[in-house]
Amino acid sequence: MNTTAKLLLHCPDQPGILAEVTNFITINRGNIIYLDQYVDHVENIFFMRIEWEIKDFFIPKDKIEDYFETLYAQKYGMKFRLYFSDVKPKMAIFVSKLSHCLFDMLARYTAGEWNVEIPLIISNHPDLQHVAERFGIPFYLFPITKENKMEQEKAEMELLAKHNINFIVLARYMQVISEQMIEAYPNRIINIHHSFLPAFIGAKPYHAAFERGVKIIGATSHYVTTELDAGPIIEQDVVRITHKDTVQELVSKGKDLEKIVLSRAVRKHIERKVLAYKNKTVIFS
Amino acid sequence: MNTTAKLLLHCPDQPGILAEVTNFITINRGNIIYLDQYVDHVENIFFMRIEWEIKDFFIPKDKIEDYFETLYAQKYGMKFRLYFSDVKPKMAIFVSKLSHCLFDMLARYTAGEWNVEIPLIISNHPDLQHVAERFGIPFYLFPITKENKMEQEKAEMELLAKHNINFIVLARYMQVISEQMIEAYPNRIINIHHSFLPAFIGAKPYHAAFERGVKIIGATSHYVTTELDAGPIIEQDVVRITHKDTVQELVSKGKDLEKIVLSRAVRKHIERKVLAYKNKTVIFS
Amino acid sequence: MNTTAKLLLHCPDQPGILAEVTNFITINRGNIIYLDQYVDHVENIFFMRIEWEIKDFFIPKDKIEDYFETLYAQKYGMKFRLYFSDVKPKMAIFVSKLSHCLFDMLARYTAGEWNVEIPLIISNHPDLQHVAERFGIPFYLFPITKENKMEQEKAEMELLAKHNINFIVLARYMQVISEQMIEAYPNRIINIHHSFLPAFIGAKPYHAAFERGVKIIGATSHYVTTELDAGPIIEQDVVRITHKDTVQELVSKGKDLEKIVLSRAVRKHIERKVLAYKNKTVIFS
Amino acid sequence: MNTTAKLLLHCPDQPGILAEVTNFITINRGNIIYLDQYVDHVENIFFMRIEWEIKDFFIPKDKIEDYFETLYAQKYGMKFRLYFSDVKPKMAIFVSKLSHCLFDMLARYTAGEWNVEIPLIISNHPDLQHVAERFGIPFYLFPITKENKMEQEKAEMELLAKHNINFIVLARYMQVISEQMIEAYPNRIINIHHSFLPAFIGAKPYHAAFERGVKIIGATSHYVTTELDAGPIIEQDVVRITHKDTVQELVSKGKDLEKIVLSRAVRKHIERKVLAYKNKTVIFS
Repeated sequence: MNTTAKLLLHCPDQPGILAEVTNFITINRGNIIYLDQYVDHVENIFFMRIEWEIKDFFIPKDKIEDYFETLYAQKYGMKFRLYFSDVKPKMAIFVSKLSHCLFDMLARYTAGEWNVEIPLIISNHPDLQHVAERFGIPFYLFPITKENKMEQEKAEMELLAKHNINFIVLARYMQVISEQMIEAYPNRIINIHHSFLPAFIGAKPYHAAFERGVKIIGATSHYVTTELDAGPIIEQDVVRITHKDTVQELVSKGKDLEKIVLSRAVRKHIERKVLAYKNKTVIFS
Repeated sequence: MNTTAKLLLHCPDQPGILAEVTNFITINRGNIIYLDQYVDHVENIFFMRIEWEIKDFFIPKDKIEDYFETLYAQKYGMKFRLYFSDVKPKMAIFVSKLSHCLFDMLARYTAGEWNVEIPLIISNHPDLQHVAERFGIPFYLFPITKENKMEQEKAEMELLAKHNINFIVLARYMQVISEQMIEAYPNRIINIHHSFLPAFIGAKPYHAAFERGVKIIGATSHYVTTELDAGPIIEQDVVRITHKDTVQELVSKGKDLEKIVLSRAVRKHIERKVLAYKNKTVIFS
Repeated sequence: MNTTAKLLLHCPDQPGILAEVTNFITINRGNIIYLDQYVDHVENIFFMRIEWEIKDFFIPKDKIEDYFETLYAQKYGMKFRLYFSDVKPKMAIFVSKLSHCLFDMLARYTAGEWNVEIPLIISNHPDLQHVAERFGIPFYLFPITKENKMEQEKAEMELLAKHNINFIVLARYMQVISEQMIEAYPNRIINIHHSFLPAFIGAKPYHAAFERGVKIIGATSHYVTTELDAGPIIEQDVVRITHKDTVQELVSKGKDLEKIVLSRAVRKHIERKVLAYKNKTVIFS
Repeated sequence: MNTTAKLLLHCPDQPGILAEVTNFITINRGNIIYLDQYVDHVENIFFMRIEWEIKDFFIPKDKIEDYFETLYAQKYGMKFRLYFSDVKPKMAIFVSKLSHCLFDMLARYTAGEWNVEIPLIISNHPDLQHVAERFGIPFYLFPITKENKMEQEKAEMELLAKHNINFIVLARYMQVISEQMIEAYPNRIINIHHSFLPAFIGAKPYHAAFERGVKIIGATSHYVTTELDAGPIIEQDVVRITHKDTVQELVSKGKDLEKIVLSRAVRKHIERKVLAYKNKTVIFS
């Protein structure tokens, strides 16, 4: 497979942007293999994801960003990010005690489904060390107490930095992440919440769903922001329940949802198909 | 089709209830054609719905309730309701300006899908009079203002009483029902809320869903209680949306959900398959 | 709302098409409000739907088609269709005895949901005349026998031609359309089949689904081709069933699916968002 | 948790069965904790699943089957099976090259989700040996050729017998099982087929789905019978696709379906909630 460049951008909408950008790539001999664009007519913002083969591209790989900045980004007030398909993002997984999301991601990783590297797993409990070991991935234990939380997080961040981690996945990690870490990884910490947000924010959502008597439960994967369970939503899904389902049955059905929803969100992130804007996401097809 | 009796009951669970009740029907030559039961092991409550043909039943139709009360209800502390399939419940529809739920229900009614009578439609706006006329159903206009609300509701309740209305369906009726009416029809006012409750309670849920950036929207049909949008849920369903969907598109997709969810809930109610208990429902299959 | 032009096209894929077409519209002062494109990399075909406001467009409305043909269609081997938002397509509905799809479409039509005209309803049975009358739409009865089929269809086609009908919706019309009519309306006859095609082709699909013991049933809306139930699929949806559901219950649950699936497909067609290619459809977002 | 007995039965329907069976358990001091019953009014068959705590049951555990046979089964022409919750069924997994279903089941097994033992994994290819090793489960390789198939299957069956295997799960095992093995495990071989059966029977269903242009794909778990992909269906589910999805994308989305659908079916089987009758299943709630 040929190496591709992936460009995600957004800017105030105005006539001609799409034509100019595609023209720029085409006249420089880039073969466009993917294009998806969208205009938010409420906010008047133009969003675009474009991917092209760079084998014959006139502009050298390491200068594309610079050229694009000069030629278009400044002109249109664009924010953009450029990725190359031959650079694997590095992902850290945070877990606590529940294994279903972790197993699901490591199975995909081992089977080669995801173009990603997972250099390490971090946990505040030792329970899932055996899972990490089964898959041969280093496991780091950082027990958290009220007293040591800030300190432990700093140690975690040093470890993440040392391994050049690009983004973090909270796979049912049962700790609120503090602001210092959230700000270090803006829209780069993916969480799975075990409810159909914004219903049942916070702890014990299955108990709350059971109490309310809903007929459908859900799971939500979102980027972590400083407001609890309120970050940009990447993916959601639901499953039907009945009055016969106990809380334990909700937990069991919910686990299947959680792992699938989280893995879909992570895949979209890995493939650079998520663009967060304000508190929402554009998910490119 | 033979006339059937439908018995819905609940009581504290204890051994032998199911055996006794089915035995009671069988030895009195009732042919059981439906049985569904469920035990809530948290609350320790036994719920049951049983239906049998009464053609050869030893106990006369008009004495079944009395016999059952004496023989079982008192013994087990049961609450029960008894219905006969040859008695059509009478249903009133309340509407305001949106026609989709009203059309959907009247189409089913006209096609003979529902074993119900709809003697009248009530509205606080004249907009949908033409729909009522197309289907030949009397339409009563009760404009509501802050000042006349209690008075108009009383007039509505007189009208409902005069027509022996058993239950009310709020088909996107854009008025909060006051306590006096809710208490007159406990668990007999069915509402459709245009969100996946408990998310987006109150007004303009599609706008709220759009703002929050959810990936799925829903609709919820529930019995009306004095707490807004918090009554026992009968039915819910959802549909997937994307960042491309505008508020208008959410409204449009939501309408299809609303009418199907409401009609499913109404059908369950007509078939006597809903048993509300505390703030939840048991939906018999 | 300003009048828009809607252009749907496909052609062999090659670099620059997207840039050229968007450029063509932009430099001629068309304000692009919608663009969706897709490349089928298996067949190497480029598909595009673009919509722009024509108020300030340099090229007169009645010459756009001609200019586009000369400038681009010939150059790229394009097939394209051009529509204007101020021209309502004319739709005929064919029915037999079941009313649910008919009611659903007429309710939408009456509520102004669809930008379409429905000048007439055709049926081979008198049963649904009352529905047409409720909505004030002319109803034409063409009883069909083996002997008179070709003749009656010819009479129908004359009637359709007289009313400048653009496309036909078979709303549970229980007659196979013959080749002469299909060829007169290529990809312009929309059918609803009451199964999840290609499962259960032909008659009595709910009975077949019941016999097979499936756990989910579906409905499929597709363009009619000369091969039975094998035309390009526009929309499908499904609903979960259980072993408790009788054939009658499948029919009942299926009706709700059928009407929603058919109406979604018709809406997509009305909005010019369906492009049939070979035996498949591109559904623009 | 107290040990329970689980009784599944079916017989020609007649009045009094339910009352008699529940009475039998109650008067012998069995505490009924689950009951689900269903009457197929087409075939006139009564189906029932009942579960009770046997701690204080008058009849000794090892005589229940005998007593029930004498007292009820002969009288009513019942077929029944009796299980105890403290006996774990033994399950063998057959795989070939695809790991997703295997990983999913072993993750659940390792997490203690299933009340089952998995003494061994059998494969016709060495590819997934590493997965078995990660989870510490013996892996047996039986390469299959046209010539050695019957012989290898016999060796497999000896191995299964030696380990007292109760049922087999084909986790994307890419070999047709021959009659000798199917007859040795009637309704005890669970397969996952990667389509929404009966659509796309046989090989390469995702390619066939792509060719047909369906808008939804599915997966089906069923018991294996001698007719290919035609056995009793236990569970199905679907996911929406679009024209943009390539065959590879269908495969990817399908994998998530397959593993969830298969694991749901296996769980139902383990919990003794599936009763196959003729070519259909009754799935108890």
